[in-house]
Amino acid sequence: MEAKTHEAEPQEHQTSHEWGPQVWTHLSTVRGRSPLVQCITNFVSMDLMANTLLSAGASPAMVHELQEIPDFTPRADALCVNVGTLSTEWLPAMMAAAEAEVRSGKPWVLDPVAAGATRFRLKACLELVGLRPTVIRGNGSEIIALSRASVGPTKGVDSSHESTDAMEAAKALAQASRCIVAVSGAIDIITDGQRVVGAQNGVAMMQKITATGCSVTALIAAFVAVDPLHAFEATASALSIFGIAGEIGMDMAKGPASLRMHLIDSLYGLDEATVLRRVNINRLP
Amino acid sequence: MEAKTHEAEPQEHQTSHEWGPQVWTHLSTVRGRSPLVQCITNFVSMDLMANTLLSAGASPAMVHELQEIPDFTPRADALCVNVGTLSTEWLPAMMAAAEAEVRSGKPWVLDPVAAGATRFRLKACLELVGLRPTVIRGNGSEIIALSRASVGPTKGVDSSHESTDAMEAAKALAQASRCIVAVSGAIDIITDGQRVVGAQNGVAMMQKITATGCSVTALIAAFVAVDPLHAFEATASALSIFGIAGEIGMDMAKGPASLRMHLIDSLYGLDEATVLRRVNINRLP
Amino acid sequence: MEAKTHEAEPQEHQTSHEWGPQVWTHLSTVRGRSPLVQCITNFVSMDLMANTLLSAGASPAMVHELQEIPDFTPRADALCVNVGTLSTEWLPAMMAAAEAEVRSGKPWVLDPVAAGATRFRLKACLELVGLRPTVIRGNGSEIIALSRASVGPTKGVDSSHESTDAMEAAKALAQASRCIVAVSGAIDIITDGQRVVGAQNGVAMMQKITATGCSVTALIAAFVAVDPLHAFEATASALSIFGIAGEIGMDMAKGPASLRMHLIDSLYGLDEATVLRRVNINRLP
Repeated sequence: MEAKTHEAEPQEHQTSHEWGPQVWTHLSTVRGRSPLVQCITNFVSMDLMANTLLSAGASPAMVHELQEIPDFTPRADALCVNVGTLSTEWLPAMMAAAEAEVRSGKPWVLDPVAAGATRFRLKACLELVGLRPTVIRGNGSEIIALSRASVGPTKGVDSSHESTDAMEAAKALAQASRCIVAVSGAIDIITDGQRVVGAQNGVAMMQKITATGCSVTALIAAFVAVDPLHAFEATASALSIFGIAGEIGMDMAKGPASLRMHLIDSLYGLDEATVLRRVNINRLP
Repeated sequence: MEAKTHEAEPQEHQTSHEWGPQVWTHLSTVRGRSPLVQCITNFVSMDLMANTLLSAGASPAMVHELQEIPDFTPRADALCVNVGTLSTEWLPAMMAAAEAEVRSGKPWVLDPVAAGATRFRLKACLELVGLRPTVIRGNGSEIIALSRASVGPTKGVDSSHESTDAMEAAKALAQASRCIVAVSGAIDIITDGQRVVGAQNGVAMMQKITATGCSVTALIAAFVAVDPLHAFEATASALSIFGIAGEIGMDMAKGPASLRMHLIDSLYGLDEATVLRRVNINRLP
Repeated sequence: MEAKTHEAEPQEHQTSHEWGPQVWTHLSTVRGRSPLVQCITNFVSMDLMANTLLSAGASPAMVHELQEIPDFTPRADALCVNVGTLSTEWLPAMMAAAEAEVRSGKPWVLDPVAAGATRFRLKACLELVGLRPTVIRGNGSEIIALSRASVGPTKGVDSSHESTDAMEAAKALAQASRCIVAVSGAIDIITDGQRVVGAQNGVAMMQKITATGCSVTALIAAFVAVDPLHAFEATASALSIFGIAGEIGMDMAKGPASLRMHLIDSLYGLDEATVLRRVNINRLP
């Protein structure tokens, strides 16, 4: 894999043709190394998230008891924190696990579900952002709420914004927090505050399946786990791979539930030729 | 949609032929408006419930933290409370959310899972009933337990009674609590205490899938959200629609797991002609 | 069903040919009696576990509130305790329910997920083992950790050991705890401390589906519920049946998600001829 790009001098953006081999390398490395990904996530997403990680070749572990963090988290290759069903009881474990990952130089990824929906949730998300996640992945409304640090117009867990509406907010958040920010939508946007790429894999019906957003965040954690020095590239790769699995699944699907099944099956079976042919990642202005 | 029927003078019951257009209007209105349905529900059901709401066109949000209720619940178009995995920790949030919905004139729906199984559960359910749910949906054993306010012969979460055994209990509960009561079974019974209709859509194998009962309760919340003045009709519509999706799913199913998938796919794809042809709602004596 | 074998004089091991009718009898008895199985289990597994029990003809109930144990547990025919997402809050209910089952002479089954991963988890598991489970089912790493009572080399929830590596540990644990110990793997090992059989049904891809291990533990609880005097045989039967359902499912599967669906469908539809033909249980040295 290429050497890390220096932050101050971003290299020219690659075309999709150039991204393909890198995306494939990320997936095959996850399959080969089977990184252990600790997930502290919402109740709705646990099943699909665990199955997404298993199908990609990673090893999921849902561990959220505060007392277990000191023993367990240092062994995890990456951490995924998702606030979807946040409670006062779980927040300390999320923070302790994030701190443990940072201390040991391991990556962690934040999914700020419905960040702008309540003051409690926004405050918790901002505290988590303060713990320096490697990657933040949300929808447009969530990234805008985090960037503005304000409770905003959001409709529950679904976005009121296109991902492209959140591009400036994503850049500002990435710069302020010195992390990668990914915004899911018709185009998935990935930025490190300077570079911006768009991944255009996936199908609209994936939004009709609960926890697909949560699951791709966990997949990002697995990809960053095997390439922590290139979190920007690993994040784009994970979003593209999940989208490709959705595209292939859609060819067989008759609705959201069969799409969910075929997506996971496809993720498990993805081969190099398919990945190279379908990767659609491009530089955005 | 027709004007609200005065409680004291129930209109003549409609035939299935007359119900069809109304049922379709309810579904298409949910698809058009995408009501936000807050769900405080059991852990087993969260996945299927969220996917049921998404497939019907509604927007689910699983939010149960007490601190978030004041910010979040007033924005929800309806609330679904399900006590399936009830705990002392969650009960205050259920009650606070129900009170918030009532205060803002929004509908809320109660699923009293295994109400008669333990004294703790029965007491909690009776307190929730005291907060004036718009609709209560349970199986025969649950409705009988609530109506008698007694811990009774129940087998875990499964019913020991046919829905028709609970008809008088349902009427009494609806009158005492001034709400709609629905009893699921081979025939789904819906009553406002005076009128009684039976919805005979659905297939027996749906009982072999966990959380189908919970999910149809959430669907009722979505339907009542878009037609709060006709909770009786909206409840019957939701039960019929879910049953129709099951019937169509059954044509393709080879067992409970494929039925679950096809049910959700079918719910997503239901068209007007199919709904009009299959609705089976009739007056009961 | 044969009379109980005296512990000190184990009878000769049966061949697969002799096991077949017994395995089928166990499954058909579960279908006929529909035992109520209380499950205190992790959040990831609840959906698949409930659907596994329903498809096998049992009646699952996820009840974990401490206050409900005195009313509820005495009615359950068996209890399944799984520490996958263990927390300090849930442990007392697990222990109270296990004690209630033992007091009333009912069987209970322990799934010590990731027992060796943290000191907190190991301590909790050892306390639970002290409450005399009827059966303990884990993977190789978990059984070794319990047998040695030490935090050991484990990779999250996945095993670092083959089941056969854990044979001596399983025997020692069974003898020390006077219970049946089952170790899942390519060969599922079942021992009462003296007798050892291996069940070789199942397919490797089942490990790529989250919660299959948890679900077969619940199935063991259902089987032991209907034949508590032959916990050794009932455990082997449950592992074989779940594996057979996986084998049949695999014929139709295109990946882990479709395998999950077909496995549950197959479990629901299993007939006598298929069971008799496929049961593969043999004495191990």
